[in-house]
Amino acid sequence: MLALGVDPGHAICGFGFVNSKLQPLDFGVITTNPKARLQDRLLKIFSELDSLIKKYQPDVLGVEKLFFGRNTTTALAVAHARGIILLAAAINNLNTFEISPNEVKCAVTGYGHANKAQVTFMVTNILKLKQPPRPDDAADALAVAISTLNSRGSYL
Amino acid sequence: MLALGVDPGHAICGFGFVNSKLQPLDFGVITTNPKARLQDRLLKIFSELDSLIKKYQPDVLGVEKLFFGRNTTTALAVAHARGIILLAAAINNLNTFEISPNEVKCAVTGYGHANKAQVTFMVTNILKLKQPPRPDDAADALAVAISTLNSRGSYL
Repeated sequence: MLALGVDPGHAICGFGFVNSKLQPLDFGVITTNPKARLQDRLLKIFSELDSLIKKYQPDVLGVEKLFFGRNTTTALAVAHARGIILLAAAINNLNTFEISPNEVKCAVTGYGHANKAQVTFMVTNILKLKQPPRPDDAADALAVAISTLNSRGSYL
Repeated sequence: MLALGVDPGHAICGFGFVNSKLQPLDFGVITTNPKARLQDRLLKIFSELDSLIKKYQPDVLGVEKLFFGRNTTTALAVAHARGIILLAAAINNLNTFEISPNEVKCAVTGYGHANKAQVTFMVTNILKLKQPPRPDDAADALAVAISTLNSRGSYL
């Protein structure tokens, strides 16, 4: 089984492909131009994610549930991008798996309130990476992919 | 000039096409199955809106700015749908025009705090409709289309 984890954002959108053997096939970020119109930024995310899905043909797309933090404007922008990601999944006939941020942290570190550094440390170790994945968005996406595999019991 | 006004929602999404002569070419709603997965509901909205855009080839797509009301869960769901609508515009090379709810009310009724009934009444009169457009989401979409034309000075 191959899971695609996505960390949604309209400025920077992390992605990570991890298979049942906990091998990272590819990971990175899709970035958009802050000066571009929102519609064009969303189109860039959609196009690049669609290409990645068609290239690797994952079995499932994992994405975090969205909660309101302090910055509601950011939450709305992320929700716009998240809609695009779900659409890319639907167009490619790909099941999506929703997971809470705490579940991701728990699956990767064993502790639901782990910080970013702890998550990155464990992702690096679980995937046997030579160095921590950068930027954080890519590390977060890999954590979501691992949690998605975990939740579906595919590497147990 | 032809404006497409959209009232975003993941359950019911209003649309209205109005030209510079203030003639309504088409209006209505796209509805989705509450039991369907969110990704499939978003796909239905995208597919139907994309077909409508290709059919009527509007010059601009108007959509309301999003604000937080009391129900933040609803705001997030609407933002998902709004992302899809902006993507449909971008894919069809269509400019989008963002307008605040107060600007819409002001453009249609002359009063920024008009209620739904007042907006519907004025939309019915401005567009010389025999009966009020139903449901509210379609009336709201037509109001957005009228405001979009107004803001761009195309029927002045």
